[in-house]
Amino acid sequence: MKSFYSTDFENFDQRYRSTLFNSISGFKSLNIVGSCSELGISNLGLFNSIFHIGANPFLLGFIVRPEGPEHDTLKNIRKTNQYTFNLVSEDIYVNAHQTSARYPSGVSEFDPCGLSEWVSDSGFKPYVNESPIRIGLEVREIIPIELNGTKIVIGEVKEFHCENEDVLQIDGFIDLEKAKIMTCVGLDAYYLPNLLSRLPYAKPTEKK
Amino acid sequence: MKSFYSTDFENFDQRYRSTLFNSISGFKSLNIVGSCSELGISNLGLFNSIFHIGANPFLLGFIVRPEGPEHDTLKNIRKTNQYTFNLVSEDIYVNAHQTSARYPSGVSEFDPCGLSEWVSDSGFKPYVNESPIRIGLEVREIIPIELNGTKIVIGEVKEFHCENEDVLQIDGFIDLEKAKIMTCVGLDAYYLPNLLSRLPYAKPTEKK
Repeated sequence: MKSFYSTDFENFDQRYRSTLFNSISGFKSLNIVGSCSELGISNLGLFNSIFHIGANPFLLGFIVRPEGPEHDTLKNIRKTNQYTFNLVSEDIYVNAHQTSARYPSGVSEFDPCGLSEWVSDSGFKPYVNESPIRIGLEVREIIPIELNGTKIVIGEVKEFHCENEDVLQIDGFIDLEKAKIMTCVGLDAYYLPNLLSRLPYAKPTEKK
Repeated sequence: MKSFYSTDFENFDQRYRSTLFNSISGFKSLNIVGSCSELGISNLGLFNSIFHIGANPFLLGFIVRPEGPEHDTLKNIRKTNQYTFNLVSEDIYVNAHQTSARYPSGVSEFDPCGLSEWVSDSGFKPYVNESPIRIGLEVREIIPIELNGTKIVIGEVKEFHCENEDVLQIDGFIDLEKAKIMTCVGLDAYYLPNLLSRLPYAKPTEKK
């Protein structure tokens, strides 16, 4: 058993600390977040903190770190109210990782990262054309976390798109393995999950 | 391409909607959350909404649905201020799933779910003895989401424990694949991820 206590945390090298703390809590939802400036300049950023808040209304949240000069995602969402989540598949994870580079503010990540833009029939944008599952959201609430200066962005899903209809099962389950969707650990490790089992609804009477 | 728009959402059967919406956004962090009542009665619950908020201080968040009579997790956290995240490995995912059953309030899930309790050297509890990676937290903030009545619980990590020291790499990276840690989709599908690659820090000069 290897144990770490908060009194040890301060002695960690900053990079070691970041790598350790970003990998200890488990696998993450991996999405490229797309947004547009008021002038229509598109932006992509890689986020691994997407979480489900509720199905009625359909709300998803994610964390944005303290704003810097290149931090266009939050600025764009505030101006236009809309943004997209684009799930990352095996075919594009290297491109997705490249969107995490610090391009100057006002430079679209699409072209330098080898990705192309897609607009849905409703006019919602900017989606990543190469992503097999794309979600369009409108911002509902931005909650500042005073503890560390980050912000929680809560959005309502207005539409979503599955490139391959076969990934949608009859009960509504999306077969993310068939769509080759990836998960990540920390800021650099990319994984392809294999389904072990879908388990039946758990009831208290069953003893394990 | 299969597209869904918010005007379609209302027509979905409730179970279909829940399954679809819970699987569309990607793989999730899977943790058994442990807590204790004032009287020391332990409680376990399965959560797939854990997200990283920051490394300094080391903050993790998770979502708790509107409180019901059996919803001991939030009640316990409010009373005792402390709780644990216990990562789910292949060896215990069926037991972990069983903790999602609605046991009556005041009944510990440990025994009926085939799990046993572990207390760290510092006295922190209740950890799941069978979980290979265990995290102890103190609550820092509980944020009510008025949009749907859920709450965001933010905790500061005070300690964590890796059962097998070999999963800890020299740069601080935790090899979750070696620890057989699982991820999930929706409320019932359990996956074992395989590492494809750890990619180098992305720089804007690299064209993909």
